[in-house]
Amino acid sequence: MCSAAKTAQIITVGDELLSGAVVDTNTATIGRKLRELGVTVLRAVSVGDDRDEITHAVHQALDCDLCLVSGGLGPTSDDRTAAAVATALGRELKKNSTAEQLVAAALARLLGHRQRDVDTSSLPEVPADLLARNVKQAWMPAGAKPLANLRGTAPGIEIEQEVDGRVCWLMCLPGVPSELAGMLDTEVTPRVRARFARPALWQRIYRTFGVGESWVAREVEEVLAQARKTPELSNLQVHYLAKAEEVTIGLELPQAPAQHLRDELDQRLLQALGARCYGIGTNSLPVQVVHTLTALGHTIATADACTGGQMGVLLTAVPGASRCLVGGVDAYANGVKTDLLAVSPDLLARHGAVSKEVAVAMARGVRARLGADIGVALTGIAGPTGGSPDKPVGTIELAICDGRGETHRKVVLAGSRVEVQRAAAARGISLVWRRLAQLGHWTQEQL
Amino acid sequence: MCSAAKTAQIITVGDELLSGAVVDTNTATIGRKLRELGVTVLRAVSVGDDRDEITHAVHQALDCDLCLVSGGLGPTSDDRTAAAVATALGRELKKNSTAEQLVAAALARLLGHRQRDVDTSSLPEVPADLLARNVKQAWMPAGAKPLANLRGTAPGIEIEQEVDGRVCWLMCLPGVPSELAGMLDTEVTPRVRARFARPALWQRIYRTFGVGESWVAREVEEVLAQARKTPELSNLQVHYLAKAEEVTIGLELPQAPAQHLRDELDQRLLQALGARCYGIGTNSLPVQVVHTLTALGHTIATADACTGGQMGVLLTAVPGASRCLVGGVDAYANGVKTDLLAVSPDLLARHGAVSKEVAVAMARGVRARLGADIGVALTGIAGPTGGSPDKPVGTIELAICDGRGETHRKVVLAGSRVEVQRAAAARGISLVWRRLAQLGHWTQEQL
Repeated sequence: MCSAAKTAQIITVGDELLSGAVVDTNTATIGRKLRELGVTVLRAVSVGDDRDEITHAVHQALDCDLCLVSGGLGPTSDDRTAAAVATALGRELKKNSTAEQLVAAALARLLGHRQRDVDTSSLPEVPADLLARNVKQAWMPAGAKPLANLRGTAPGIEIEQEVDGRVCWLMCLPGVPSELAGMLDTEVTPRVRARFARPALWQRIYRTFGVGESWVAREVEEVLAQARKTPELSNLQVHYLAKAEEVTIGLELPQAPAQHLRDELDQRLLQALGARCYGIGTNSLPVQVVHTLTALGHTIATADACTGGQMGVLLTAVPGASRCLVGGVDAYANGVKTDLLAVSPDLLARHGAVSKEVAVAMARGVRARLGADIGVALTGIAGPTGGSPDKPVGTIELAICDGRGETHRKVVLAGSRVEVQRAAAARGISLVWRRLAQLGHWTQEQL
Repeated sequence: MCSAAKTAQIITVGDELLSGAVVDTNTATIGRKLRELGVTVLRAVSVGDDRDEITHAVHQALDCDLCLVSGGLGPTSDDRTAAAVATALGRELKKNSTAEQLVAAALARLLGHRQRDVDTSSLPEVPADLLARNVKQAWMPAGAKPLANLRGTAPGIEIEQEVDGRVCWLMCLPGVPSELAGMLDTEVTPRVRARFARPALWQRIYRTFGVGESWVAREVEEVLAQARKTPELSNLQVHYLAKAEEVTIGLELPQAPAQHLRDELDQRLLQALGARCYGIGTNSLPVQVVHTLTALGHTIATADACTGGQMGVLLTAVPGASRCLVGGVDAYANGVKTDLLAVSPDLLARHGAVSKEVAVAMARGVRARLGADIGVALTGIAGPTGGSPDKPVGTIELAICDGRGETHRKVVLAGSRVEVQRAAAARGISLVWRRLAQLGHWTQEQL
């Protein structure tokens, strides 16, 4: 589009992406990386393991400066990316001797790694015909350079094509997400950085929870309309992203504005959004909660009765969670609630497992039992069955107990069982954040 | 491409999809639905909130019988789908009065729903100007019909366009995943079924774990080569899908073959794959484990020390998990291991928290403490720090204890912290399955 900006197309290959058997996470992984590198992704195309459709998509990508292809480099008969790229670029498919060495080395590494697995007895031996079959992965379009893949057997493919005096630069990477991620870091990033030398976009992300996109947009648009009157900020772009219980607001400019303008923008937006803004930057709510608890030297324990322990999973996903998370109890059966969390059987009988009283007792119980500063608990009906007129499917009772007091909250969430479980856990984490904010512990992390 | 098959293109809209801020799950959701309806998806395209790119993608879709668009129907200024579709089809954008009524009804429903939320104090009131702003969602290309959205404010858009004597049928749906899923069921499915009346593809999925794609393909291709000699099976298509610790094998035919041929295929493939095949059909491993445990009347409890309780989350996601899952303990801190799981401090000191001995003690402890038939435990180093030469990042010790014996397994997993955590939990579930299979409890669920 704009002549100065470098543009890209992403192509992901695999019947499983179109049939919905798997969700394509590779487009997002590549998109994030290109964003960091200051490259604008114009479109992302998923096609099946169909030579014509792959060929067509590669053709379409030739109007971009860069095309990243993921998938279809495997050893089986339905892996057709190399052949389709060759066709699209009008080149021959040839065995590449460097690539052949890479494949052999990768297989050796793989066998070595498997031998570290103590339970090798159940792994089949790799026979000679399998080794031969992997050599298919060394066939590439003429003129291509292989890219090293340290996590799998398929080397990547790098190739340039001149079209109407411009160059389109293609890199084909494997579809296995961990292999793709590794190669984006070790192979793609240094090459793109060296060749394009793009200044990264200036981006700033404001994160809110517990309010809808309309409310957020109304508050933000007013501030931005004012800000855009300053010439340096006139191109300020905004994107809203509603996800689970959160709305994030992304601002963008081709270059970073002066510090005083950034400070003023922060100040105005934080004023408009109030306590609903839990942070600025890339840190999700669980990250903010873990960092804040750690900074305060507070510990936390979780009790759960309908999501299988998902609050614990959200917190444990944050590196360094061990500094504040003691652990948790997944009290699915009522016996676990009474035995491990000291919820009285009488209370359970009187109010039912899904009640304010039981949620509060669980929060108290897990705090005391695990010796944490804060106990957070949730109990509810994830569905699809088990609801009643009083307590419909999606009813979640949440409670937090921190020695200074107890907070309770009830919500009725919509969606499938798994959606309700995810949203319930997110509400649990936001309840912790809300309590920390109430206590004045707002530690805002900056980009 | 075959003239008899109905073809489709999926378009998902949103800058956040290209920047990688969110993973596009809508393409997979739509893809699964269309597959069920016997419609072949040729390609899926993601574009940003850019009118030209959306217009271009809609143009490209006109070679298909059906085009489903998701996203960009929201109330904010960066929602541009309706306008772009109007441009692509050369139609005017007009306010649709039926759509306007749908928007008003949706807002009323939303307010009613929110009032069920006990904690309404923190929700902002919806003022009149917000109501007015949502009316943007009633503007549609001339000739379009609105589609009801029971979970949000944006109505869908249905419109037909004649191109070279053929008709391309477009439906635009919201990007919020729960709204999209609801409308696929209530609006899209009945319409597509009525109009296309397609016989669904015959599909059969064989599910394996613990072996690589190459091994699986080698075993399967031999059986299939033989099977294809039978005329009725000559068009047998196969797709392999490697995901986390699993490889699934999908077979397809335009029509279901005779029962005796299906039985023979099953028999040959199960013989070739052996115990590595854990089931036939759409049920994932956690579903198979929950169903098998329930059928046997066995209960299970989980103990976890590095994933925050992810085995519990995997099992609890299965509807009806309450019939076999008692609960679990997220024993992140060593104090929780000793206190709740009766792991001796001496054992911890001697072998370290990540050891066979501690994993076995945790499995025993959680089984005894929660009174379950089976206890499964895992402890490990999820990273990114905390590794040592002896116990590198990714080391996971797993154990299962079922009263008749104990099984232990050690693996070293690659990937990020979250990837290691997910794979570790999957290994834990597969250990349970393996034990059930050892005991002869193979209950195969059929498609």
